[in-house]
Amino acid sequence: MDTTKIVNGVNVTQILDTIELIKQKPEIALFKFRARNEWVAGTHNRATVKDFYGAGAEDDTREAIVFEIDEPPVLCGENAGANPVEYLLVALSGCLTTSLVAHAAVLDIPIRKVESRYEGELDIRGFLGISEDVNVGYRTIRVFFRIDADVPDEKKEELIAMAQKYSPVFNSIAKPVPVSVHLDR
Amino acid sequence: MDTTKIVNGVNVTQILDTIELIKQKPEIALFKFRARNEWVAGTHNRATVKDFYGAGAEDDTREAIVFEIDEPPVLCGENAGANPVEYLLVALSGCLTTSLVAHAAVLDIPIRKVESRYEGELDIRGFLGISEDVNVGYRTIRVFFRIDADVPDEKKEELIAMAQKYSPVFNSIAKPVPVSVHLDR
Repeated sequence: MDTTKIVNGVNVTQILDTIELIKQKPEIALFKFRARNEWVAGTHNRATVKDFYGAGAEDDTREAIVFEIDEPPVLCGENAGANPVEYLLVALSGCLTTSLVAHAAVLDIPIRKVESRYEGELDIRGFLGISEDVNVGYRTIRVFFRIDADVPDEKKEELIAMAQKYSPVFNSIAKPVPVSVHLDR
Repeated sequence: MDTTKIVNGVNVTQILDTIELIKQKPEIALFKFRARNEWVAGTHNRATVKDFYGAGAEDDTREAIVFEIDEPPVLCGENAGANPVEYLLVALSGCLTTSLVAHAAVLDIPIRKVESRYEGELDIRGFLGISEDVNVGYRTIRVFFRIDADVPDEKKEELIAMAQKYSPVFNSIAKPVPVSVHLDR
């Protein structure tokens, strides 16, 4: 008999088994995610994602995934790809969505559809070094979710709160993360 | 006579003209970048980047750029795309690289090659709600740059410091950004 429980396409049994395993061996909860980047020309560069460390082992089994990064012409680029601050919104969108859907699955709340939109305000006087008084990073980011599920709005608000609380990308943006940048000699 | 100055593929003349223009009209420095996301199934969702507001006008001229986001099997996914925290590293890589190259261009330092690698440590006990004592976001991110240019290491270190100081994504991760998440009713 297969006792695997799937809700919203999420394997709830695997999540609960993973939680039990980590409670016994907390060290397997440490993941190391990686990217590489190679400059192409001007504002165009290319990032690659492939291997990571997790669950106590290196994993190099994935095919490499390549991302083109560029700016629009108004910011001196040629639209060879989305720009870095747009990738940040993409990261946030993926994480909040997965966090919302996964926690809904564990709570046994079936969801039919989730859509969300993201807008971040950036004052480029920071990047251009024109003013020290403006944030160099996003001044603010606003997110709006539409959730199609047979639960009252109050429950949807709870899901949105959980999505934020448990989202690694949300917490990497809303809270400071130490980033150290070194020269390879 | 064409007096456009290009260094590292970056139009330095355009940057300097933009800086002058913004000094006269600071309001054109406000940009609004956007993304949309649609859940597919389980940990798989899809983000789209297209329009933005900048330089005082809406810009909808780009083709839409679509990103698949998923988790590896060990995190309940099927590798349909890079995962959200990897997209965050991609964003950081693009921004530090562009910031470094652009500021080198303005300083008239020709660069032949820039490569960088990124590693972020994440304890998934935060995401899984197992412990309130660990960061839900990245615990730390380490970055290493290789720069091929005819300048001493000291100057390369200066470029790396400038890359950080003026990078919108670096500053959106290293410093807290207010993110508000709402339910569309």
